[in-house]
Amino acid sequence: MSNFLDQCRTLLGTQYVITSESEMEPYLIDWRRRFTGKACAVLRPGSTDEVAAIVKLCNAARVPIVPQGGNTGLVLGSVPDQSGTAAVLSLTRLNRIRAVDPVNNTLTVEAGCILERAQEEARRVGRLFPLSLAAQGSCTIGGNLSTNAGGTAVLRYGNMRDLCLGLEVVTPQGDIWNGLRGLRKDNTGYDLRDLFIGAEGTLGIITAAVLKLFPAPKAQLTALAAMQTPEDALNFLTIAQDECGAILTGFELISDVCLQLVIKHFPHLQLPFAQPHLQYVLVELSDSESEDHAMSMLEAVISRALEESVIEDAVVASSIAQSRALWALREHIPLAQAEEGKNIKHDISVPISNIANFIRETDDLLQQAFPGCRMVTFGHLGDGNLHYNVSAPVDVQDETFILRQPEVNRVVHDNVHRFGGSISAEHGLGALKRNEITQYKSDVELQLMRNIKNALDPLNLMNPGKIL
Amino acid sequence: MSNFLDQCRTLLGTQYVITSESEMEPYLIDWRRRFTGKACAVLRPGSTDEVAAIVKLCNAARVPIVPQGGNTGLVLGSVPDQSGTAAVLSLTRLNRIRAVDPVNNTLTVEAGCILERAQEEARRVGRLFPLSLAAQGSCTIGGNLSTNAGGTAVLRYGNMRDLCLGLEVVTPQGDIWNGLRGLRKDNTGYDLRDLFIGAEGTLGIITAAVLKLFPAPKAQLTALAAMQTPEDALNFLTIAQDECGAILTGFELISDVCLQLVIKHFPHLQLPFAQPHLQYVLVELSDSESEDHAMSMLEAVISRALEESVIEDAVVASSIAQSRALWALREHIPLAQAEEGKNIKHDISVPISNIANFIRETDDLLQQAFPGCRMVTFGHLGDGNLHYNVSAPVDVQDETFILRQPEVNRVVHDNVHRFGGSISAEHGLGALKRNEITQYKSDVELQLMRNIKNALDPLNLMNPGKIL
Repeated sequence: MSNFLDQCRTLLGTQYVITSESEMEPYLIDWRRRFTGKACAVLRPGSTDEVAAIVKLCNAARVPIVPQGGNTGLVLGSVPDQSGTAAVLSLTRLNRIRAVDPVNNTLTVEAGCILERAQEEARRVGRLFPLSLAAQGSCTIGGNLSTNAGGTAVLRYGNMRDLCLGLEVVTPQGDIWNGLRGLRKDNTGYDLRDLFIGAEGTLGIITAAVLKLFPAPKAQLTALAAMQTPEDALNFLTIAQDECGAILTGFELISDVCLQLVIKHFPHLQLPFAQPHLQYVLVELSDSESEDHAMSMLEAVISRALEESVIEDAVVASSIAQSRALWALREHIPLAQAEEGKNIKHDISVPISNIANFIRETDDLLQQAFPGCRMVTFGHLGDGNLHYNVSAPVDVQDETFILRQPEVNRVVHDNVHRFGGSISAEHGLGALKRNEITQYKSDVELQLMRNIKNALDPLNLMNPGKIL
Repeated sequence: MSNFLDQCRTLLGTQYVITSESEMEPYLIDWRRRFTGKACAVLRPGSTDEVAAIVKLCNAARVPIVPQGGNTGLVLGSVPDQSGTAAVLSLTRLNRIRAVDPVNNTLTVEAGCILERAQEEARRVGRLFPLSLAAQGSCTIGGNLSTNAGGTAVLRYGNMRDLCLGLEVVTPQGDIWNGLRGLRKDNTGYDLRDLFIGAEGTLGIITAAVLKLFPAPKAQLTALAAMQTPEDALNFLTIAQDECGAILTGFELISDVCLQLVIKHFPHLQLPFAQPHLQYVLVELSDSESEDHAMSMLEAVISRALEESVIEDAVVASSIAQSRALWALREHIPLAQAEEGKNIKHDISVPISNIANFIRETDDLLQQAFPGCRMVTFGHLGDGNLHYNVSAPVDVQDETFILRQPEVNRVVHDNVHRFGGSISAEHGLGALKRNEITQYKSDVELQLMRNIKNALDPLNLMNPGKIL
């Protein structure tokens, strides 16, 4: 081991081979501070060539590698286990913008580039990079790719996989695959790109990517609509898609329980309705024409929904400040939950047509099993993706309730499965859900995954214990 | 072998095990009638279970399998080689629509379903299935998936890979993987779906799929614009994207040479301009609002382009008949080429920003090497995808010119590579380009592909000799 670390120091320079416990700590603790792993070192290469060389050293010494970006993942995918044998390979020094091409609508960035910086670079040339999520000031493009990140604009623009045209990857053997193509159409063999995307660092290390850009919208408008049930929200979605087509870019479901929590813990935020309703939807339109056009579209959607009694009320933001205030309600839900105490979180998806039934039936089952438990349900309704979170009944201690997480998970995940859904819609499996998934994936599928893993990483050195 | 065929007959029924040469012929000859393979039988299973059982029989008897849909492929991917050892496995009896869900915007179909029927089924429920290509009356969804088909609506809706949410696949071992998920977000392991899509039947047999539907547009408008150069066409694209955003659904480049061929061989078709121009672009908008709105958008684009001297003239179709007449010009190009004689075809893509330079420089190189050769260039400019076809000089026999195909390919493909492009944008590799691609792909990439192939199909029974 000391020989291995010496080789790493020679390669990277001493300051980029971190071994002191205090300096390693931020790389070893997970984003939600539930778990701290151990590592023999944190390695910080500064270039793709250095990544490749480090991987070769790890191969020779049989040192497992945990690739890490902003370490903002939610499923323990970017921290090592507690054996202390692995090295964390941090990509944050690979943070250059390599190229921007507004005519081809592409941006080539390194894996360690912070998402927000990629968004800014696109904006600078009059384009949009649409991936948008809570951690965008800290998470990296490499992490976004490795987890196939989702967020609030998937309805229109797709997941990270849909936003990437090409990759550069260091293989588990330390070879560099240059697949940095900026092509909309390329059918010359197996889709390696989409295999590395979402593989959570278990098949290789993404070091750079060609991202898709879009024309910057000329206007963005936000509204908050109020309704009775998730079923109404679904009908509202169908109306909005029918009226607006591709300019509908956001459609977030928020239950009243969520908003009440937000107002309780962040009293400077206000609910823009005189009285509370049971469900809300935050709608966003991104218009390539004009603000006036966007407003007329939004008004048409809302009038029709009111007329058809699908919604009960709606407010349209008439300024950027008002739009931010509406989004702030949505964005403060996770923070308000944290203030309220611990809860049991689920990042699930079902076919959109099943959402209302899923919520009703799962809510019922949970009430039977855990009377009084509080449902903190919100999420990306337009994608069928809910953050279906369960808080303790008011008279039960969080810590007591959390102990029942396996039982709660079983009710929720079994029902997700029954409705044809996924137990990890946008966060990945990591170490957190790798056992859970074996309950729901067929042996055929698990075996296909294992065969691919063995074929590309026969020594099982790439982020072992994650996904599989 | 006779034992194997007897087992097949017992399984499928005698009428679905074809062995007579005359009955096998349509399954053995390629779409462009350049090549006829040999097979020990054509097998026509009627269900996924039968496909799985047949694959197990082939495994036991070590009979290679050539999966086949509509057999409309252009790269010899769906016909067997001339050894006569393989069985063609035709999926055309698996042609059911299994489910349609307009709220989830999904359509579940079997692999043998003709593309046009899937489009019709979507239309029936007020939705759009956007894949659109010349062979849509004959090609199957399974073939579209296995080749990751492209076509004329990729600019807005993406390739077939982007239009598929889930798959059912029979593995090379005869197991059934049920991945028929109708989810927009699912991050629970490796992206097997995208690995089977575009694998041209070399990793398994796609038997069914969940396809994405979209709201049906309320209006579609077509225009033909005329300009001087491909560079002008590119500037026109940037204007159209800026003005129209996502309602821009088609952007086809057509050189005057192409249109002159069309008019020569199909005199009932007419060029809608008083005098010819050097380049044309066929533009299509699909509007979710109204025909009036679409018209005002199209007029805005055209006025701005005329004002900025990017285009010289334009006609807007004012009726469905006129729109069809404009599309007919585009669609008759391949037919006109065939009437004119044989030519050397290239299905290539480059980054959109490189298209004008690529055309100019490659045209020059070809003129130097093959003076007088005629460039029949057209294609999906919005995707960077050109059908860059080269016809013999007027005074040279086609057959003589065709003999120089390897030299012509080398000039074109070397230049594609130099400009960061792909030598197969939307047709795949098949048997036709499997050697050619080894010139341009890195050893690292080829080895990754071989590792995956060996991991999933260690006996090399799935469509051997294709892709790799």
